[in-house]
Amino acid sequence: MMSTPAYDALTRDFQRLYNLGHLQSMASWDQAVNMPPGGNEARAAAMTEMAALLHRLRTDPALAAALERAGGESLDDTQRANLREMRRDWAEVNGLPEALVERGSMATSRCEHAWRKQRPANDWAGFLPNLKEVLSVAREEAQRLSERLGVAPYDALMDRFEPGMRSDVVSRVFGEVRTWLPGLIRDVIARQSTEEVLAPQGPFPVPAQRALCEQSMRLMQFNFEAGRLDVSTHPFSGGMPEDVRLTTRFSDHEFLTSLMGTLHETGHGRYEQNLPRHWLGQPMARARSMAIHESQSLSFEMQLGGHPGFAGLLAPLVQQAFGDQPAFSAQNLNRLITRVKPGLIRVDADEVTYPAHVILRYEIERALIEGQAEAEDIPALWDERMQELLGIDTRGNFKDGPMQDVHWPAGLFGYFPCYSLGAMYAAQWFAAIRRAHPDVDARIAQGDLGVVFDWLSQHIWSAGSRWTTDELALRASGETLNPAHFKAHLQTRYLGA
Amino acid sequence: MMSTPAYDALTRDFQRLYNLGHLQSMASWDQAVNMPPGGNEARAAAMTEMAALLHRLRTDPALAAALERAGGESLDDTQRANLREMRRDWAEVNGLPEALVERGSMATSRCEHAWRKQRPANDWAGFLPNLKEVLSVAREEAQRLSERLGVAPYDALMDRFEPGMRSDVVSRVFGEVRTWLPGLIRDVIARQSTEEVLAPQGPFPVPAQRALCEQSMRLMQFNFEAGRLDVSTHPFSGGMPEDVRLTTRFSDHEFLTSLMGTLHETGHGRYEQNLPRHWLGQPMARARSMAIHESQSLSFEMQLGGHPGFAGLLAPLVQQAFGDQPAFSAQNLNRLITRVKPGLIRVDADEVTYPAHVILRYEIERALIEGQAEAEDIPALWDERMQELLGIDTRGNFKDGPMQDVHWPAGLFGYFPCYSLGAMYAAQWFAAIRRAHPDVDARIAQGDLGVVFDWLSQHIWSAGSRWTTDELALRASGETLNPAHFKAHLQTRYLGA
Repeated sequence: MMSTPAYDALTRDFQRLYNLGHLQSMASWDQAVNMPPGGNEARAAAMTEMAALLHRLRTDPALAAALERAGGESLDDTQRANLREMRRDWAEVNGLPEALVERGSMATSRCEHAWRKQRPANDWAGFLPNLKEVLSVAREEAQRLSERLGVAPYDALMDRFEPGMRSDVVSRVFGEVRTWLPGLIRDVIARQSTEEVLAPQGPFPVPAQRALCEQSMRLMQFNFEAGRLDVSTHPFSGGMPEDVRLTTRFSDHEFLTSLMGTLHETGHGRYEQNLPRHWLGQPMARARSMAIHESQSLSFEMQLGGHPGFAGLLAPLVQQAFGDQPAFSAQNLNRLITRVKPGLIRVDADEVTYPAHVILRYEIERALIEGQAEAEDIPALWDERMQELLGIDTRGNFKDGPMQDVHWPAGLFGYFPCYSLGAMYAAQWFAAIRRAHPDVDARIAQGDLGVVFDWLSQHIWSAGSRWTTDELALRASGETLNPAHFKAHLQTRYLGA
Repeated sequence: MMSTPAYDALTRDFQRLYNLGHLQSMASWDQAVNMPPGGNEARAAAMTEMAALLHRLRTDPALAAALERAGGESLDDTQRANLREMRRDWAEVNGLPEALVERGSMATSRCEHAWRKQRPANDWAGFLPNLKEVLSVAREEAQRLSERLGVAPYDALMDRFEPGMRSDVVSRVFGEVRTWLPGLIRDVIARQSTEEVLAPQGPFPVPAQRALCEQSMRLMQFNFEAGRLDVSTHPFSGGMPEDVRLTTRFSDHEFLTSLMGTLHETGHGRYEQNLPRHWLGQPMARARSMAIHESQSLSFEMQLGGHPGFAGLLAPLVQQAFGDQPAFSAQNLNRLITRVKPGLIRVDADEVTYPAHVILRYEIERALIEGQAEAEDIPALWDERMQELLGIDTRGNFKDGPMQDVHWPAGLFGYFPCYSLGAMYAAQWFAAIRRAHPDVDARIAQGDLGVVFDWLSQHIWSAGSRWTTDELALRASGETLNPAHFKAHLQTRYLGA
């Protein structure tokens, strides 16, 4: 055993960042779930203090030196993977000059803050100058990171969320989806128009909805010894791998939103709960990427949630929660869950139309970053693509158009593709599970979900960031990202093809 | 305006400690209220990391130098008071050698951890060796702090909780109480034996109890925009002045414990909520001392809670919560709340017998620290005093005797006096309020509690640590601690004298 003093020191530094990050993460959760409004200012000061502290620790020049030295030490493969992820972390924080980071922080704060009022007022004109400044910073960030990483500017931004993914791949994949998606949507709508779907009769009391969500989390084998479900305005999966905090929201006239949202967050949550425990605290134990994370939430919400056999597991839980009614038959629930209807809002979109929302955003934001479009051009580009992809007229409706998402005001260019890449990976995982277990559909219908969870745990969850995303996909499913599985999934589920 | 660079730098350092302490405080609250058991290990690591970080910041030699330099700067009176409190903070953390602090931390961890199982098992023999080690460390700490502060060893420990208080004062005050308390208890019991008291008929559903507690907090003008009420095994007041987190606990066969406990915590909470807002973040804005804090919780729970006029405000809330029954008349509620009955357990004690529990602990722990008694002697000293003060035989019952409190296992010698000093200060505040507002009792009965809260806010809450405790008491009530008010209060309330 060779001694590895630099590497060992790095593991202690990253463990320390992890420990402090724990308090930051729990305070974020508390802010969304518990904090009374009067606590806001003091909390903001505390969070700023912690962010500054973590930033200082992550930009400590001693860290760069240790990363350099550790590269020359005799590390085993796992340690080397951990070192690779440490370097990624370092590059992410140290890749931009302080002044640019501050300018970005100012620009996004101002833009996002104003957007919260401008969006409901449909005030594109007020929003535009703020967004232009955010875009200007993002372009400069992209340029600098691009030079550093040796990839295209947009790719450099996307790399923060989806390491290793490149826009030539995304463009090829999304371009292919574009060729068949509008036709598929039309066919599905035509087919579903002959289906009878019963609307559930409310109200659906919140305590019963909460019990239903917790029951469905148990069905999904969420570990309540290491996590909980609470309520927040915007549902999310937070906390830490050892203590996962999921949230949902309830309204008593409708229960499917909270139920399906909870299944979604439970997918994120189980990924976190089952990351490699022995390595927790080290970058190698982190979830692999945003698309892989999304592939877990969508495995739960879409692959399982929309599965006809799974509806048979949900039905008794729904009946137990609200009493029996004809709309709660397994078949009707499945029809409700898989109903396809083009709409304005991405977060409300069904599994089939969702990629259209992502593709249009990807095309626009890439053009923005690469300078082929300006912020002023967004509405026209948006209207054109919504018409093309979903046949919807969005002219003049900014609030349900390009102002609907927080991502651009927050400067998160390069994030959107992850949603649909995640849906594609999820379909790819289920194709692999089906190859390994040809009886998987029957087993799901019987409530034997372990066959799915065991596969995900073995191939995805327990790997953390041990491999690059391509290696992970290859080891798990025998191939890197292959969108054919997603197309096949949609055709099978929605057209019975 | 002279420039005060050292002082200014210190205010930034302390603001920073405050900001980081915010996250520590919220995580502690979360641990008691929300955290699932599986989160324990990671949380402990995070809290240890933060404690180590704060310790490093608070022992930074640059701080000592700045404190020295700031003393020579041209500060106004308020700044000078802030500097005084900064120095106290510094002395508290830097007064002991690292090795002794670590030995203490090990000893109390071990003792407290084992005590949690030894107490229910009545295992004094198992507890004793751990306690001896805790005591040994406490004696050494007392010795070192004593030399540093130039006060007696026990006083040096007490000073951590009750700055400026000395054992000659405590001994004189408690010695005086000792002369009349057993007789008073006998007289009260004799008097109450002729009263008819109706027992409330349960069950008392937890949701109704929770609503009652929140209603009573509103009655006490707790600011729910800057705080909340939750449930934990051991009720406490936590969080931060800007976001106060109170807890209580419920059992459905009894409601007065949670109600009176909530009134108690609300007193702590309103003190925190109304500390000098402009100074929050600076040591001068902290609550003055443990006894002063307790004087607020006891002003709420005992002075107001046991007030016959206040029972008329509680009665409709109780009836609203559980429906009407004869036991919920104002008079009967007041009799239930003011019922005096000597018992084994301090935390369950009524207002009249409580000082007996404190006096006996004070006498024993002072003898322990000063070397006049050893840990082995505790049971005999305990039995003797319980017989003397409360007429109760405690021989052989360690778990409800000297093993009942966490304070000694946790090494908190010098804390106990604060409880009864707080009760005395509370009586002193109410005497002052009564002098300023001779109609205060009628106004309380009418629900006009503002007269009390305004006085407390003006004289105690808004002062923070602007003055020493003696100065605070003098400014508020025209005299330093005067236990005659407590005696008069008990005689008036319990003997109609």
